Amino acid sequence: MTAVTVALDAMGGDRAPAEICAGAAAAVEPGVLEVLLFGDEQAIRSAFGGRVPTGVTVEHTSEVIDFEEDPAVAVRAKPDSSLVATCRAVRDGRAAAAVSAGSTGAMVTASTVTIRRLPGVVRPALASVFPSAGGPLTVLDCGANADCTAEMLVQFAHMGSCFAADVLGVDDPTVGLLTIGEEPGKGNQLARDAYGLLAATPGLRFVGNVEGRDLLGDKVNVIVTDGFTGNVALKTAEGTAREMAKQIRAAAMGSPVSMVGGLLMRGATRKVKRRFDPETYGGAFLLGLSGISVVGHGSSSRVAVANACRLAAEGVRHDICGHVAARLAR
Amino acid sequence: MTAVTVALDAMGGDRAPAEICAGAAAAVEPGVLEVLLFGDEQAIRSAFGGRVPTGVTVEHTSEVIDFEEDPAVAVRAKPDSSLVATCRAVRDGRAAAAVSAGSTGAMVTASTVTIRRLPGVVRPALASVFPSAGGPLTVLDCGANADCTAEMLVQFAHMGSCFAADVLGVDDPTVGLLTIGEEPGKGNQLARDAYGLLAATPGLRFVGNVEGRDLLGDKVNVIVTDGFTGNVALKTAEGTAREMAKQIRAAAMGSPVSMVGGLLMRGATRKVKRRFDPETYGGAFLLGLSGISVVGHGSSSRVAVANACRLAAEGVRHDICGHVAARLAR
Repeated sequence: MTAVTVALDAMGGDRAPAEICAGAAAAVEPGVLEVLLFGDEQAIRSAFGGRVPTGVTVEHTSEVIDFEEDPAVAVRAKPDSSLVATCRAVRDGRAAAAVSAGSTGAMVTASTVTIRRLPGVVRPALASVFPSAGGPLTVLDCGANADCTAEMLVQFAHMGSCFAADVLGVDDPTVGLLTIGEEPGKGNQLARDAYGLLAATPGLRFVGNVEGRDLLGDKVNVIVTDGFTGNVALKTAEGTAREMAKQIRAAAMGSPVSMVGGLLMRGATRKVKRRFDPETYGGAFLLGLSGISVVGHGSSSRVAVANACRLAAEGVRHDICGHVAARLAR
Repeated sequence: MTAVTVALDAMGGDRAPAEICAGAAAAVEPGVLEVLLFGDEQAIRSAFGGRVPTGVTVEHTSEVIDFEEDPAVAVRAKPDSSLVATCRAVRDGRAAAAVSAGSTGAMVTASTVTIRRLPGVVRPALASVFPSAGGPLTVLDCGANADCTAEMLVQFAHMGSCFAADVLGVDDPTVGLLTIGEEPGKGNQLARDAYGLLAATPGLRFVGNVEGRDLLGDKVNVIVTDGFTGNVALKTAEGTAREMAKQIRAAAMGSPVSMVGGLLMRGATRKVKRRFDPETYGGAFLLGLSGISVVGHGSSSRVAVANACRLAAEGVRHDICGHVAARLAR
């Protein structure tokens, strides 16, 4: 097995560069997964306490893209930013995957213009993994394209099927269309248009409409939707899980008896918490490009960063880009 | 205080008529809240064990609208259905509010054509209550209109503000626009159009964009969105809460220690469960009509039905329709 090199944006994310560097240190395995780290060299070296781990290579960049900046403007104006340099490493063949916990919009834009789309892909899509009853469930688009066409949703179905099979190990994944109401023809104009097109597309295991509750269910392996609805749904699920955990904690503190109960249950609730934690997968996969790009949560910790790097390497090893290209060329 | 009469569809819902009748019995308070119950008279009398409670009046109808039927077709084809008769009682002034746990689409259609819209209202909207960190949060539209215009979202903001003030007792409610990204101009075409219009509308406490996670947060009291996104978000939140509760239960059963912990925490977790239970409010309020219409969950139990009747009566007592009409006439 040759080593997979992951390019990592050391300056992207609320907790950069400290947690990003710690994540790189946790993910690196010389000869297996190596990291090319872009950012302010001095800041990175000091984050490592002067000792850069074996398998990590640091490359200096002079600019940083902030969360508040307009993505299209920032990507063009800051060619020597850590985020753009991370994507460029993939384009130039120096790394097999790009990972950043910086601005999602900037990462989508930089990946698209730098790594470039696969032939025939209308738009790349962000795939996120939901911790559902039937196992990890792939949802896309989770925010790359606020407005979509039915044709785009069909491409997302192909890309999501490749991701579920290659990265999550799902055998011949089933695909559902997110809408309101289970019968064909239910939903908004986009969902009604997409239903017919998905049903008529050969090579997809399309099983029909699914609803919001099915995002956490066991009906299908892949759910397609536009990036607006997908992003709202992803953040609603994250927000609900967080608020519920908070309220259970508060309720447990309400009486001595329940406090003892809470302590005894700690191991069990931690397991559930870990499962619902967005950090478990570390990031969303940008699919439809000729190279791999993973966008981490802005608040990514070292655990999330390390998981995002491993997820990206998994995509490389299974040649997900090649599989998406082959499916779309059919 | 004169009694509020609520018209109730005895045949609507997965557990009708038994749970609906039990809910009516729980909600009724002679002289305060009385119920006009529509459905198969024999089935209703037998559900009550032959003794119809004081304050409940039964009226026979011969038809039932099923969940699978096309709403527009069914409402027209079945004028003597329990659902349509329930709405007609409001139009005819025999009841002040209509409640059904039957088909949402049929209830929206029957309410709109029978009770009719308030002058100037483009479309009625379904308002649901989320159990958020900052207290009960009103979200609309949760499914009456899959495709919306920016003008409709402005009307929803007015209606939702009235609902939050009148029914939930929120003082001068704040309003957010559901989108992806907090900065103005983020989101799909509808959200971008609606932002400017909401910001320019006098008489609204519009505070800007909110994201999916804010549905469970404490940033605003009212969140407006199209009925497609709102319905997906509502069902995603319900699905996440249900799946998380299931996994915590399963994790607690995993070891003797955590089982004891789970038992000791039972009171505390029940409180949280009740808070996240969609039955707590019993249903979604259809706003923008000249009378009150409440649509319950299809799976409504007696508790949900009773809460839906009380919610409807609360709307009557606070004259929510009058307030919506006055706000929209400004």
